[in-house]
Amino acid sequence: MKMTRLIVTAADRQWCEAAAAAMVGFGTSVIACGVEIAVERELAPQETPDGRPGVAILAFAVSGKELEEQIPRRAGQCILTCPTTALYAGLIGGPSVYPKRVPLGKTLRYFGDGNQISKQIWSTGLGEGEPTETEATRYWRVPVMDGEFVCEHDCGRTEAIGGGNFILLGRSIETVVTACRAAVAAIAPLSGVITPFPGGATRSGSKVGSKYASLFASTNEGFCPSLRELTKTELPSGTKAVLEIVLDGASFDAIAEAIAAGVVAACEAVGGDGLTGITAGNYGGKLGRHHFHLHDLMTGREA
Amino acid sequence: MKMTRLIVTAADRQWCEAAAAAMVGFGTSVIACGVEIAVERELAPQETPDGRPGVAILAFAVSGKELEEQIPRRAGQCILTCPTTALYAGLIGGPSVYPKRVPLGKTLRYFGDGNQISKQIWSTGLGEGEPTETEATRYWRVPVMDGEFVCEHDCGRTEAIGGGNFILLGRSIETVVTACRAAVAAIAPLSGVITPFPGGATRSGSKVGSKYASLFASTNEGFCPSLRELTKTELPSGTKAVLEIVLDGASFDAIAEAIAAGVVAACEAVGGDGLTGITAGNYGGKLGRHHFHLHDLMTGREA
Amino acid sequence: MKMTRLIVTAADRQWCEAAAAAMVGFGTSVIACGVEIAVERELAPQETPDGRPGVAILAFAVSGKELEEQIPRRAGQCILTCPTTALYAGLIGGPSVYPKRVPLGKTLRYFGDGNQISKQIWSTGLGEGEPTETEATRYWRVPVMDGEFVCEHDCGRTEAIGGGNFILLGRSIETVVTACRAAVAAIAPLSGVITPFPGGATRSGSKVGSKYASLFASTNEGFCPSLRELTKTELPSGTKAVLEIVLDGASFDAIAEAIAAGVVAACEAVGGDGLTGITAGNYGGKLGRHHFHLHDLMTGREA
Amino acid sequence: MKMTRLIVTAADRQWCEAAAAAMVGFGTSVIACGVEIAVERELAPQETPDGRPGVAILAFAVSGKELEEQIPRRAGQCILTCPTTALYAGLIGGPSVYPKRVPLGKTLRYFGDGNQISKQIWSTGLGEGEPTETEATRYWRVPVMDGEFVCEHDCGRTEAIGGGNFILLGRSIETVVTACRAAVAAIAPLSGVITPFPGGATRSGSKVGSKYASLFASTNEGFCPSLRELTKTELPSGTKAVLEIVLDGASFDAIAEAIAAGVVAACEAVGGDGLTGITAGNYGGKLGRHHFHLHDLMTGREA
Repeated sequence: MKMTRLIVTAADRQWCEAAAAAMVGFGTSVIACGVEIAVERELAPQETPDGRPGVAILAFAVSGKELEEQIPRRAGQCILTCPTTALYAGLIGGPSVYPKRVPLGKTLRYFGDGNQISKQIWSTGLGEGEPTETEATRYWRVPVMDGEFVCEHDCGRTEAIGGGNFILLGRSIETVVTACRAAVAAIAPLSGVITPFPGGATRSGSKVGSKYASLFASTNEGFCPSLRELTKTELPSGTKAVLEIVLDGASFDAIAEAIAAGVVAACEAVGGDGLTGITAGNYGGKLGRHHFHLHDLMTGREA
Repeated sequence: MKMTRLIVTAADRQWCEAAAAAMVGFGTSVIACGVEIAVERELAPQETPDGRPGVAILAFAVSGKELEEQIPRRAGQCILTCPTTALYAGLIGGPSVYPKRVPLGKTLRYFGDGNQISKQIWSTGLGEGEPTETEATRYWRVPVMDGEFVCEHDCGRTEAIGGGNFILLGRSIETVVTACRAAVAAIAPLSGVITPFPGGATRSGSKVGSKYASLFASTNEGFCPSLRELTKTELPSGTKAVLEIVLDGASFDAIAEAIAAGVVAACEAVGGDGLTGITAGNYGGKLGRHHFHLHDLMTGREA
Repeated sequence: MKMTRLIVTAADRQWCEAAAAAMVGFGTSVIACGVEIAVERELAPQETPDGRPGVAILAFAVSGKELEEQIPRRAGQCILTCPTTALYAGLIGGPSVYPKRVPLGKTLRYFGDGNQISKQIWSTGLGEGEPTETEATRYWRVPVMDGEFVCEHDCGRTEAIGGGNFILLGRSIETVVTACRAAVAAIAPLSGVITPFPGGATRSGSKVGSKYASLFASTNEGFCPSLRELTKTELPSGTKAVLEIVLDGASFDAIAEAIAAGVVAACEAVGGDGLTGITAGNYGGKLGRHHFHLHDLMTGREA
Repeated sequence: MKMTRLIVTAADRQWCEAAAAAMVGFGTSVIACGVEIAVERELAPQETPDGRPGVAILAFAVSGKELEEQIPRRAGQCILTCPTTALYAGLIGGPSVYPKRVPLGKTLRYFGDGNQISKQIWSTGLGEGEPTETEATRYWRVPVMDGEFVCEHDCGRTEAIGGGNFILLGRSIETVVTACRAAVAAIAPLSGVITPFPGGATRSGSKVGSKYASLFASTNEGFCPSLRELTKTELPSGTKAVLEIVLDGASFDAIAEAIAAGVVAACEAVGGDGLTGITAGNYGGKLGRHHFHLHDLMTGREA
């Protein structure tokens, strides 16, 4: 997986959230949506390049080319359009640090129809990293009806990891929902990781393949409580509902830390009375290169 | 424009909002996003087919074919995946009322990999209309990890109108934002109309065409305060910022009513001190068949 | 019980909600808080006296005197202080309609230190009722740092009913929470009724009296799952958790309609698998004059 | 001023916010409300004593006695009542660290009517401080309808500082609102400080005393734009609106840091075009012992 990180700021928190919600919507699956994209976390004014309220967004795709197409298209519809917003690179570093680049203002500037202006700033010193050598950062100022849309020229992209997951099994859907929301709340403040499904979780656990030739994936019968009698179930006795939390992260460690925090919070929220088990999907071993072993993650945490 | 209306329900308001936010995200433009799609309004449990908290969504596209592709794809990623949700037609009536249909469960059922079940109900009596003759409504029950995803077979689609708009011109961006938010708040409870841009408004007013051959649209210099000295401006003296509210609606009347409500609320919010004018974009007369004449709308309202 | 209804407006929805949250906070019990007070519902700009976004608030107290003390004190701390807000009577009608009055601007105007200005308007024609005869409505304009605080002189008060309730019993706390939230969502859009506890529900069901002489009320052992073995329980077998929804309303009918809507929504949300029963607290017959018979309410609904 | 810090947790974020909103409502002024109380910040599950989603609350009063009365009364109405919540001390340390104590479970346990159970835990190791010596922490488990209400026995209280403030002066109310919200957003993530007014700001700047003998405070004419011609104004030319941000903090440094962050964010949000000045209220020198000199705060920041 390839990943980039964007920072959106606005004059107030309300525009910032509206822009971010549009930007990350319909972004749950690299296959059907092009990108998996979600808010990483809110940024206070003192954490953003322009001192205004902001939000950090992480986006993942299966190829750099896909990121390079999807990000400017989404930004053009959801950030350029949204009153008072600005758009910055969230991975700090020029081509010497991140040679592969995702275009931002590089593409969006043309909306200015020749009236756009470029500005170069040589010292960045912003954000949570530093370029290894001093490179100019280029910003575009595109005339729009509320003044100017300020947009950084481009943003680095980097290798990352998709599809980390853990699965909560419980005695009722209500119990699993409570556990699931506690897990998502524990993951929310962590850096370098997102849970791209609606509300952070999904119920449509899938297996690779289907009896219908054209379908890439279909329901994973072994995890469907309503099919317990009809299939070879993988559900412990008493399991009435199952939810899966899927994570994309900047690194193996970021995902591992998030899974550990989520599992602990899920258990604290409903206790042994509510959950019948926690597991992880490995999709029959057919997908993915990385494996997160829940037992190791949790015992590692206690060591 | 072609339009359909969907109802999403969930076990609680929080899942309902998460599903809806994903479903309508990245849905600001029929050209770049395929659909213009937004929440029409919240539905109380007593207003939904299954008595649970819900939300109504309107989606618009330039062709029926586009709706028929976009809606099942978005629903498959954003509703099927989201815990506890169900999906229903929001236009009440079978093929005898709406002969053109958008597939919902008709497509999504295959995720069940043969385990899906169909159910027909002959009397509907739900929602805000009635079929002219009794037709069976077909629902699909697709096994998923939290139980079953209930999804109506399909939904009618109908002719509708896109691109209604009005433009607020003011003495500062802060003033125009306040007026704009009051207008959006006035439009929010109305039926049959959406404002698909982030937060309901846009600053990237555009003209058709560009000096760059590949661009369909570019910034409308006449409405850009920063280009006042460089172009033939259309801005009254003292205008520092401009925002546009774009509306899609089920009918001319729905849009006209929304514009009238929005204009009144904008004026009440900031008064003559804040706004320097209100106008409407006609894109050089190059786009659209319908014209909303603000003066007629407002005087009609007082008559 | 005595009741009044207030309308708070502001330049935007965000200030409106901030003012309302402060105004209704710490307002769950007439005994410990002086008033039971909560948001009745949001008002669109076209529903408010000044055409701005608004909110309607209902407040209940055991005596008119208590209302007359509490409301201006709370309004002075929570509305007068809050940027851009205005405060209006929510019961339409002067002394000829509502002879008993709760002071608003009548008290708050003195903050102006002599600089306040009074304004009389003879025709109201606003809101959802009409005075039986034309009476002047008096408004105060109090100079503050953001301009002027506009505040109606006073507001009528009327007889009302407190302490309507229904109690949800279920197989797990998570199940009862889901049912409870669906009930609260069904009650939210209804006029003339509020659920004043946090989130609309309470778990601290009480009986009148206590073994500690100074306590007016204490936990109702018969409804505590953890005391099942130690007391004469009133819990059906399998009940692990119980929540109560308490309602105050403008009339018996308003409360009855809300209970019926809430009970239906609770049942739809979790079904017979989740709830073990629904009942109502009558506090040993020691409190209250009105009785809502759930069975009658529900069968009446189906008739 | 005396201060305490509380931690409220719940099974999910929604109950947590409902309980906190009730607990801190009507809490803007030590004089009229007894306490100034507000949410300090959200706590992720991994930051709370019981691993569930939480919130930290700061409360200030003019005397320890007032805190000791107000906190258990508010907690009894707003936390004890709210489904799934628990209540913990937010200042870590027993009587050897904080000899003065605010009762929590010590008072609330009696609701259990003799069925409450006490539990002592000797090692805490939670939160952001450590007791200087090991002392047992006592918790109460009070039977309620959703299971048990867990409540720490008491919480320390400490000396603190109230009434820090800064005042934003601007060219329109909309401009000042935008600046003000950016300031509040910058202060929100900081520890040890709250902005207790609705939305974090107030427009009802006051002077000590009034021409009406019974009033302790009244409008500060010098800061009212509408009285510019009638009084000795303190407003720079072009000032149309003013808002004040009032802060209570655990220490002089906490408030100073918050003011600096807020002032910077306000300036970044609207720039010199929007604000005509920033100042601080010293209430004619009649109130308070601490003085925050804005110029020192800001230059200190740059040093």
